[in-house]
Amino acid sequence: MTAYDELMAHERETQALGQVAGRLGWDQETVMPRGSGPQRAEESEAMEHVLHARRTDPRVGDWLAAIDDATLDPVGKANLRHIRRRFERTNRVPAKLAGALARVTSSAQRSWADARAANDFAAFAPVLEQVVALKREEGAALADGGDVYDALLDDYEPGATGAELQAMFDALRPRLVDLRDRILGAEHQPAALTGHFDEQSQMKLTREIAKAFGYDMSRGRIDKAVHPFSSGSGLDVRITTRTSPNDPFGSIYSTIHEVGHACYEQSIDDDYLLTPLGQGVSMGVHESQSRIFENQLGRSRAFTGWLFERMKEVFGEMPVADAEAFYGAVNRVTPGYIRTESDEVQYNLHVLLRFDLERQLIAGDLAVADLEEAWNSRFEADFGVKVDTPANGCLQDVHWSVGLFGYFPTYSLGNVYAGCLMKALRAQMPEVDDHLARGEPAQATKWLTENLQRHGGLFEPKEVVTRACGGETPSEAPLLDYLEAKFGAIYKL
Amino acid sequence: MTAYDELMAHERETQALGQVAGRLGWDQETVMPRGSGPQRAEESEAMEHVLHARRTDPRVGDWLAAIDDATLDPVGKANLRHIRRRFERTNRVPAKLAGALARVTSSAQRSWADARAANDFAAFAPVLEQVVALKREEGAALADGGDVYDALLDDYEPGATGAELQAMFDALRPRLVDLRDRILGAEHQPAALTGHFDEQSQMKLTREIAKAFGYDMSRGRIDKAVHPFSSGSGLDVRITTRTSPNDPFGSIYSTIHEVGHACYEQSIDDDYLLTPLGQGVSMGVHESQSRIFENQLGRSRAFTGWLFERMKEVFGEMPVADAEAFYGAVNRVTPGYIRTESDEVQYNLHVLLRFDLERQLIAGDLAVADLEEAWNSRFEADFGVKVDTPANGCLQDVHWSVGLFGYFPTYSLGNVYAGCLMKALRAQMPEVDDHLARGEPAQATKWLTENLQRHGGLFEPKEVVTRACGGETPSEAPLLDYLEAKFGAIYKL
Repeated sequence: MTAYDELMAHERETQALGQVAGRLGWDQETVMPRGSGPQRAEESEAMEHVLHARRTDPRVGDWLAAIDDATLDPVGKANLRHIRRRFERTNRVPAKLAGALARVTSSAQRSWADARAANDFAAFAPVLEQVVALKREEGAALADGGDVYDALLDDYEPGATGAELQAMFDALRPRLVDLRDRILGAEHQPAALTGHFDEQSQMKLTREIAKAFGYDMSRGRIDKAVHPFSSGSGLDVRITTRTSPNDPFGSIYSTIHEVGHACYEQSIDDDYLLTPLGQGVSMGVHESQSRIFENQLGRSRAFTGWLFERMKEVFGEMPVADAEAFYGAVNRVTPGYIRTESDEVQYNLHVLLRFDLERQLIAGDLAVADLEEAWNSRFEADFGVKVDTPANGCLQDVHWSVGLFGYFPTYSLGNVYAGCLMKALRAQMPEVDDHLARGEPAQATKWLTENLQRHGGLFEPKEVVTRACGGETPSEAPLLDYLEAKFGAIYKL
Repeated sequence: MTAYDELMAHERETQALGQVAGRLGWDQETVMPRGSGPQRAEESEAMEHVLHARRTDPRVGDWLAAIDDATLDPVGKANLRHIRRRFERTNRVPAKLAGALARVTSSAQRSWADARAANDFAAFAPVLEQVVALKREEGAALADGGDVYDALLDDYEPGATGAELQAMFDALRPRLVDLRDRILGAEHQPAALTGHFDEQSQMKLTREIAKAFGYDMSRGRIDKAVHPFSSGSGLDVRITTRTSPNDPFGSIYSTIHEVGHACYEQSIDDDYLLTPLGQGVSMGVHESQSRIFENQLGRSRAFTGWLFERMKEVFGEMPVADAEAFYGAVNRVTPGYIRTESDEVQYNLHVLLRFDLERQLIAGDLAVADLEEAWNSRFEADFGVKVDTPANGCLQDVHWSVGLFGYFPTYSLGNVYAGCLMKALRAQMPEVDDHLARGEPAQATKWLTENLQRHGGLFEPKEVVTRACGGETPSEAPLLDYLEAKFGAIYKL
């Protein structure tokens, strides 16, 4: 065996163990008995120890040193790029700091949940202060003299920088704020969908839609969970959804979103199974797939036309006049505090707020003690509404409590990528709306498989999007053009 | 930290990882998508490598050498006994042999399934020959000059010997054969239960019964699987069951059986969680719990009286005349080839046949090539019927294909222990039938928790049964007395 072969054999077992650890998380959120928590915590911690030991195994360093990258083919080079990056990053963080981060974020998540329930930011602030201090320390260790926020961002979006994302948001913000203001002030306001929708029928419909988008149920499954998610890679990629009797769109669109994530994982070239290339390449690219499935395809006029007819068959008469009114109900823009309940237009403004605040926190320009006030005044400036309670404000998201700094902007990056990909898809498949109108989105998702998903981790994030877009460098313009055209029509602006 | 503390911390993580590996098995049999198999095989193998490395970690040997057992309390001594036994056994088997066994048994299980489906023992014989050869080699390594079969048996029933079990079977056989002959020749033959029983109602009823026997659903759950099983220890012990529209007893009694296993695991002292004492102490003692739940309690005249009334409420009128006829239907003895479908009377004769044949195989006194003929002639001698096809004969059980030699006799040992425990329980709780007749078996199962289950691995198998029986050494007499009295009454012998 060459050093490369030995390294890859070691890596393959590590990948398999990583899948096992992920499966424990799925189990916990879907089927685990409620009294099993304390034991599960020990099981997950033991798996983390095993994975950490494998990832910092000095033999990995020896193998990496012994391999001459120049002798490898493109797949081998890409594998080395991933392994080397992870090995260097993992080894830069002292074991003591990694341990402290694991301990503090684990208890901080509970503190956050308690504080949110009690609507009391002051109770959470001291804990968040510890998390921020440790993340700044971790970022400094990772940055090795470079930018601390960029170093944290690299965990989720390799190669991206805070400055680049800042430029993206600077371009998004004025046109989004303007669009939102025109929408909320428009004379024509589509009505919401009201009524009672049988939850078993919702589950049946979501399964049908999941399959129509290309989700392979022979290597996946759909269960209910409080928060929908996608879990796993390769031959076992499971999603969850939720239902509510008064809001069928919740189950339908959270399912299509997760199917976007899951199809990406399922569509990666079989040759990359249990290798570093066998997973989606970054959070931003992952989110581009979930968002293009959910929004550009799933919330399109064409697909909602089919969906309206299908829902009439499933639920009986619908409480909206026609397909046009249904399309409006699917795409309603209303003022709201909560990011996850937001529409396509306002979503990125929510993210932008978080991106700015977390950069200031990490830079040391904003103290945790001042976060609530900073959040509230910024929210009022961007959304024109005062935040009423911390649960609707700076306590609404779990991310910071568990140390996810640098994660939020990947949501918007995903939207921007989705905009670029949809433009390229329309150019190459002018008849895409005909497919969607027949309830056959798989024609479009197959294009994504062919042009992006199948590559897994072969190319860097921005590179794989650029290639799919025929060489055009991603920019925010296609997303903004799409939003202005779509919502201009719906709201008759 | 003392050497003992370090050893126990290491052991605790190993136990947690063992639970994770077990959970993968549960997942595979209940919820895993059908196309995920190849990836799951790699995941399970990776977990096995991790566990094997931990179990053979030279530091364990160092810690064991550094600990003076005399300084430990009884719990510490028991922990050391388990860890030392496992460490020594694992290290006695050369890595190459362990690897060959894992490989061969893994493919042999598939060969067995194919051969059973094709009813072709000759196709399986060469593979089984390899398994037997490797198991003999493993047994010799483990025995270190002692008896090879005893060394294999020790994996499932520490401390038991083939000679001891032979004496047990010698005592069981004549009275069981005589009882079976008298039953099958009896004039009075109870009718079977026929009809159609809604499967959803069966599932609801089994959940109710599982709880009535003491199964804690806040730390467990019931799913469907092809073969019912119990899985996990401590705070997460799950069972599976199956339903058939024509046979409600299948779901009810396989559930009670698995609940016996599960309650044992759930009832072990909390202090032993994720330690070597935190699991049932042996296969025989485990089976004693599943069988006393299922048979001595669940198939008793008293409990079936309650069950008859409850089933009338759940399924409507029952197609048997009265509670007495229902009791007869539950306990019908009929000729049959298959061990797992057998009744209380014939079950141990099925096991005895396997015990004798596997001892001969391991001793080298029986060639695999001659196994089918040996099985068939022995079956005819014991059961008075010719075996019609290998699937109903020597290909019916999976055990040997996966290398489980020494496992079968623990089934009968469990029955013998169950007989002793029921005698002791009746002596101390003369009103037990009143509880059972009210559908409250938890009074009886609490006695088992108190007197046996809570100890987990604290005592050796035979010792924990002896203690529960007030110091009386276990023997086969109580089981035989119970069977003769029970079936004598049912069949009016």
